[in-house]
Amino acid sequence: MSQIRHALSVKRADDFAAWYQEVISAADMAEESGVRGCMVIKPWGYGIWERIQRLLDNRIKATGHDNAYFPLLIPLRNFEREAEHVEGFAKEMAVVTHHRLIADGKGGLVPDPEAKLEEPLVIRPTSETIIGDAMARWVQSWRDLPLKLNQWANVMRWEMRTRMFLRTSEFLWQEGHTAHETAVEAKEHTLRMLEVYRACAEEDLALPVIAGEKPENERFPGAVETWSIEAMMQDGKALQAGTSHYLGTNFAEASGIRFQDRDGGQQLAHTTSWGVSTRMIGGVIMVHGDDDGLKVPPAIAPWQVVIVPMLREDDGDGALIDYCEGLRARLAGASALGEPVRVLLDAKPGKATAKRWDWVRKGAPLIVEVGGRDMEGGKVSLLRRDALWGENGKPAFTFPSLDDAASAIPAALETMQASLLAEAAAIRDRRIDRAITDFAGLEAFFGEGVKHPGWAEVQWSKPTGAALDAVTERLKALKLTLRNVPVGAPPADGTCIFTGSPAVERVLVAKAY
Amino acid sequence: MSQIRHALSVKRADDFAAWYQEVISAADMAEESGVRGCMVIKPWGYGIWERIQRLLDNRIKATGHDNAYFPLLIPLRNFEREAEHVEGFAKEMAVVTHHRLIADGKGGLVPDPEAKLEEPLVIRPTSETIIGDAMARWVQSWRDLPLKLNQWANVMRWEMRTRMFLRTSEFLWQEGHTAHETAVEAKEHTLRMLEVYRACAEEDLALPVIAGEKPENERFPGAVETWSIEAMMQDGKALQAGTSHYLGTNFAEASGIRFQDRDGGQQLAHTTSWGVSTRMIGGVIMVHGDDDGLKVPPAIAPWQVVIVPMLREDDGDGALIDYCEGLRARLAGASALGEPVRVLLDAKPGKATAKRWDWVRKGAPLIVEVGGRDMEGGKVSLLRRDALWGENGKPAFTFPSLDDAASAIPAALETMQASLLAEAAAIRDRRIDRAITDFAGLEAFFGEGVKHPGWAEVQWSKPTGAALDAVTERLKALKLTLRNVPVGAPPADGTCIFTGSPAVERVLVAKAY
Repeated sequence: MSQIRHALSVKRADDFAAWYQEVISAADMAEESGVRGCMVIKPWGYGIWERIQRLLDNRIKATGHDNAYFPLLIPLRNFEREAEHVEGFAKEMAVVTHHRLIADGKGGLVPDPEAKLEEPLVIRPTSETIIGDAMARWVQSWRDLPLKLNQWANVMRWEMRTRMFLRTSEFLWQEGHTAHETAVEAKEHTLRMLEVYRACAEEDLALPVIAGEKPENERFPGAVETWSIEAMMQDGKALQAGTSHYLGTNFAEASGIRFQDRDGGQQLAHTTSWGVSTRMIGGVIMVHGDDDGLKVPPAIAPWQVVIVPMLREDDGDGALIDYCEGLRARLAGASALGEPVRVLLDAKPGKATAKRWDWVRKGAPLIVEVGGRDMEGGKVSLLRRDALWGENGKPAFTFPSLDDAASAIPAALETMQASLLAEAAAIRDRRIDRAITDFAGLEAFFGEGVKHPGWAEVQWSKPTGAALDAVTERLKALKLTLRNVPVGAPPADGTCIFTGSPAVERVLVAKAY
Repeated sequence: MSQIRHALSVKRADDFAAWYQEVISAADMAEESGVRGCMVIKPWGYGIWERIQRLLDNRIKATGHDNAYFPLLIPLRNFEREAEHVEGFAKEMAVVTHHRLIADGKGGLVPDPEAKLEEPLVIRPTSETIIGDAMARWVQSWRDLPLKLNQWANVMRWEMRTRMFLRTSEFLWQEGHTAHETAVEAKEHTLRMLEVYRACAEEDLALPVIAGEKPENERFPGAVETWSIEAMMQDGKALQAGTSHYLGTNFAEASGIRFQDRDGGQQLAHTTSWGVSTRMIGGVIMVHGDDDGLKVPPAIAPWQVVIVPMLREDDGDGALIDYCEGLRARLAGASALGEPVRVLLDAKPGKATAKRWDWVRKGAPLIVEVGGRDMEGGKVSLLRRDALWGENGKPAFTFPSLDDAASAIPAALETMQASLLAEAAAIRDRRIDRAITDFAGLEAFFGEGVKHPGWAEVQWSKPTGAALDAVTERLKALKLTLRNVPVGAPPADGTCIFTGSPAVERVLVAKAY
């Protein structure tokens, strides 16, 4: 029993980083590809991404954006136009220099020197500079604004240290890009999309997040304002789960996005961009995983209910499968979380107990086992992934009748979705210290002996320039970072823990991924 | 009137290639990006692709495939393992050689010589070689088979002559990859996916296609069998709209996809691959477009019904919009082609007549105009894109009541979907000549003076090797190609038009994109 219960070889409390890798492998979500820094996203991991895509895409379309697609390769000259932007990305760009291979005479291949590109092309690390070109062509008059676009795409940043889902050289994301008549409207839109991300994180992924503005030295390269949502992992670290940028007229200037305004004058457009990526899946693992594997919030579970017949490879299997089909048929019209319930009947050959633990590790929200005795009694054995263990140390099965199961399942999915969020939010809130009043307090909170401290929300005087960099350096020595200035935090009423000056606002301090 | 009626400046009959480009531009589907050979897919074009993706993805999942994601970049060594495959693609591969840029000292950027990759990486032109690596890791036993995967992705082939949607350096596609225990099962699967493509082309895109096997010198590099679906464009040319390959054990051998069989022996898996791309959108344009622009089959139209209130920018506009909202509300529960009807209320500022022609050029299936007089009479003005012109040379509006419109709209969408397919099939069938019995007949059918001849289905002896290449060369002189050997064609009963030997089957000959 104990062997089965401790489904993973590493516990969160013992080695969180190793546990994270093991969940990914045990839940069959992804693996290293053999190509430096690039992972293979396996069906269960990709299925979760498809669910996130679907739900977030609906939200993005509901706020008036159209999807479009722009080139993967970007000419160097596009980057040269925005100095801060290229400074931010030049160190990690994959560069295409040739368009043909030839035999090297030793049985191998080499880039053909005759097919060298006149101008190298870069694999997009983000698409402001190429979408800016298109916006410059499309925007002529204030009547063409706002222009609201979104792209689902792969991007590439040549990261030195990679970690599956959290930081990979290639990753999948959506990037929204909009152009507006005025700064006010563009800033409003930046915050509107931040709110879309908050809603998606909390309502769809059950990830409680804190939305706020990044300090100026943490802005996206080329941005005037950068906002983020930050989620707390079970080890107390912060994960930046999405960002939304007000770009001012910087990229409009670089790309020439000009329009005739309502008075007939020429103006630069104000642009925004915002993105979330497959990184969010890393957040789901680190917030909702446990020592038995992953728990997938029902809204993003590829399968919400997995029915496992306890096959015996004899004549009785047909009747058992029919009985399971009966449950599936009863669920056919059922909805949970605004969509039809997604049910898999896993009738592949194999031992039912082994399959149960496979689905536990994968984090399927509800597992329904059906054996001969269940069938005789007109019942099923129902297991909730978020309430796996009974007080007796055994899996906490309940045994509803077929009809009761059919009506209980949609309700259980909705309950689970809400309770995963509520539990994570409660844990997070307990672990944010808002009472630290000086730097020594901060040092103590994050001190050597403290393993998983959480976050500190402290008052500060919002230093800028060199003074801010000094704060960042001081924090860096403690492996800490400034996360964001939370929206809706209480007004400051004390002194800055960094400078001792009167505080003007509150800022989150944390270790971070 | 004539200025409006001839919405495009070029007619199909005058210059089909120029007409094609103009439809793409007039329907606002895509444009050149400024990056060599790469296009920007604009919202209307991308919306059509999203619809195709959704419908085809459902079909691919219904046949038991899971989606997954594999790296964009492929090491050279992966290609070196399969000689034919690399031979087929080496000439057109984009090669990444550096992972960082540095300043060139003249205000520009260059690849950093210090950041040269030890082994160059290629942007995937197709993913057999990288997915093969993963399959080799995942397949151990016959119990792991069949393994059925699909990927939605961008790929890159450095094409010298490009044409939007039809042939671009970067394009979007899905690529399916499966591994099987036996040749028989893998071949069956190859044909199953060909049938999925046929059904998608005909039922979703209203593109009538002929499914068949490619001659051996037209196979995918490394394949044992290649099958295609071929669609006839309005200029009589063929467009290969999808391919399905039986790869034998070639890629299994190259990647090491071996399994323990049912008798305990070691076997190579038999693999398949199959793909369709954004090229299909080019087919939709060239089959369903007319001199007024695009016609989008309702199943793949981002908006199936566009309601255009004739706004006057005065106090009456509110009532008009409310009236339009009434129609939208009546359609809220309506379904057509198995899905909720997709309705846009286009209440943006602008002249209603201009908007009407915009939507005609874009090919929205149904346009509903609502003016003050319509509202007074409790009616709407309904225009079907596939029956645009009345006998009087004016737009063929009908004027149903609000309730009648609401019930007529779903039916009209279903009728239009069926009739677009039926009309295209009838035209195609009239233009296939099956009575040609010798090469002279073929020359006459495709002769100089004949502008848009169509296709010839001829009998042949299925030559191979050098004899087949000789046939291909002879056809090439006439700008003709062998398309495929149609599934279900009548048995041969004559002589080969190329060799004079007894014929063994029938093959399609056509000019092609």
